[in-house]
Amino acid sequence: MVPAEEQVLPEFSDVLAARKRFDGRVKRTPVINDPGLDEALGCRAWIKCENLQETSSFKLRGATNAIARLREVGIFDDVATHSSGNHGAALALAASRDGRRAFVVMPLNSVPAKIEAVRSYGGEVILCEPGQAPRERGLAELVKRGLLPIPPYDHPDIIAGQGTAALELIENVNNFDILMTPIGGGGLLAGSAIAARGLHPGIKVLAAEPDGAADAATSFQRGVRVTDWQPDTIADGLRAVIGVMNFEIIRQKVDDILLVTDHAIEDAMRLVWQKTSMQIEPSSAVVVAAILLHPDIFKNNKVGLIFTGGNVDRKLFPWMDEPQGE
Amino acid sequence: MVPAEEQVLPEFSDVLAARKRFDGRVKRTPVINDPGLDEALGCRAWIKCENLQETSSFKLRGATNAIARLREVGIFDDVATHSSGNHGAALALAASRDGRRAFVVMPLNSVPAKIEAVRSYGGEVILCEPGQAPRERGLAELVKRGLLPIPPYDHPDIIAGQGTAALELIENVNNFDILMTPIGGGGLLAGSAIAARGLHPGIKVLAAEPDGAADAATSFQRGVRVTDWQPDTIADGLRAVIGVMNFEIIRQKVDDILLVTDHAIEDAMRLVWQKTSMQIEPSSAVVVAAILLHPDIFKNNKVGLIFTGGNVDRKLFPWMDEPQGE
Repeated sequence: MVPAEEQVLPEFSDVLAARKRFDGRVKRTPVINDPGLDEALGCRAWIKCENLQETSSFKLRGATNAIARLREVGIFDDVATHSSGNHGAALALAASRDGRRAFVVMPLNSVPAKIEAVRSYGGEVILCEPGQAPRERGLAELVKRGLLPIPPYDHPDIIAGQGTAALELIENVNNFDILMTPIGGGGLLAGSAIAARGLHPGIKVLAAEPDGAADAATSFQRGVRVTDWQPDTIADGLRAVIGVMNFEIIRQKVDDILLVTDHAIEDAMRLVWQKTSMQIEPSSAVVVAAILLHPDIFKNNKVGLIFTGGNVDRKLFPWMDEPQGE
Repeated sequence: MVPAEEQVLPEFSDVLAARKRFDGRVKRTPVINDPGLDEALGCRAWIKCENLQETSSFKLRGATNAIARLREVGIFDDVATHSSGNHGAALALAASRDGRRAFVVMPLNSVPAKIEAVRSYGGEVILCEPGQAPRERGLAELVKRGLLPIPPYDHPDIIAGQGTAALELIENVNNFDILMTPIGGGGLLAGSAIAARGLHPGIKVLAAEPDGAADAATSFQRGVRVTDWQPDTIADGLRAVIGVMNFEIIRQKVDDILLVTDHAIEDAMRLVWQKTSMQIEPSSAVVVAAILLHPDIFKNNKVGLIFTGGNVDRKLFPWMDEPQGE
């Protein structure tokens, strides 16, 4: 694929085109409002449940769009990527549906269930040391073997595909004051910001990021992309470094990036579990954690949130196996 | 309690007062929109999930309001009722929380899980032959023993309490074209109609009823309450005969009652299961069945629905235990 630096930034029309391209292969997930959760948060939160998406994450949107675009332009190669899990599983499924093989470089500290998921969708897993550099080296070796790299977030087709979740959410629920998503590499946030600005230019677009992986917030503040961050957070899906195109779009279209602690992330997971019985992964819970830590920004507002995934290493959260009070 | 004939009809202020009276004892349940379900139904459906209420039905609202009202006026007697299950479970829980015992007359053909539920909340179950007359005889005997009867639907406190579900739904989602609930005895429908007219007088209020228990639709058409109906439907929660106050309120405030077949009810249960993974009981599914059978009434409208309960006899619906296609 063309390197990110040489690509044209995706636009609202690309998000609309991605949705059209899905043609039933991506589930239009439910939106929920839980008044008990609202009470705890002090705002009215409408949540797009990508944790209930096939592969249990939004990543299927970008992967499906990327594979469908390849087919449109007549490229039928097998594909490869690096991923902490969700993009890998999504690419494995999207590729296998399109009759291709997918090879996924995954860090050794990936959630075991996520490794199994990639395999269950027919993907070939190549384990590597944790960290951005080993992941990229692993992918480079696969590319040398002739595989086509599908980056997890730094690509217009991925960004446009991820933007369809916010598109569906904003179309379904009117008059949001704020839209907020997690930020890891920035595929979802960039796509969501494009969708939000396309539908309602006045909407406030925020992101939530773990303070142990604050490369995006730091980049945003400094105005230059920071890439030398050693991530340390339980939000395993948000340990990636913000992408080139992603940073450019986010700089243009996002109002602020709020930082959250791992402690608040676990509190948020537990709150969502208690109120809605939904198992969301730490990377999803950052948006709820951001409201818990910064209530004044959200007070009495109508807020759109995206729960990005539901793939949890339950061993890390033993309270999920305890009987619930409610 | 004062017989229904001598009571004053409940008003919007009573629904607001009921909600205030709950004081955290009734869960404010989630509202969901499922775009996949919308596509199948041809309208935009926002669903209040009382299947996720404690006791898995909306009946806790009326029972909690009735018990709280008794306490307000200084009555501390043990209570009794007749019920196919959900009202019995709700009354057992509301009573036990208030330090009272609850006795519940239940027909022998009640869903076994519903009988167990009443017992699990501390209720005493008295089984009777199926049918309205044996249920009422059973309750009369308990009243002779000094217990205070809490009717399942034909009472202003019950109606006002049940109306809080629609209150929450309409407050949370703006601009419904149509609100639709199931109709059995009419507690939920009457309360919902009061809430809807109080908040948005212009909203169209519809009900869905099984054609094998069409006493309400027949009463509505004839303008007189029909009580000699032998119900025959899988919707076990809707086999009751429409109440006196309920009929009066429904006649004044409801636009129409749509009939559905048992076949369409099961199709609707299966559709909801496939699209949302939620297990809803047949009595809940009538509202979805009504849209499937009468699509033109709902086409492209924004529709509020109440899923009334989730207590299913899974032996009757073996497909719930099969692996899901989606």
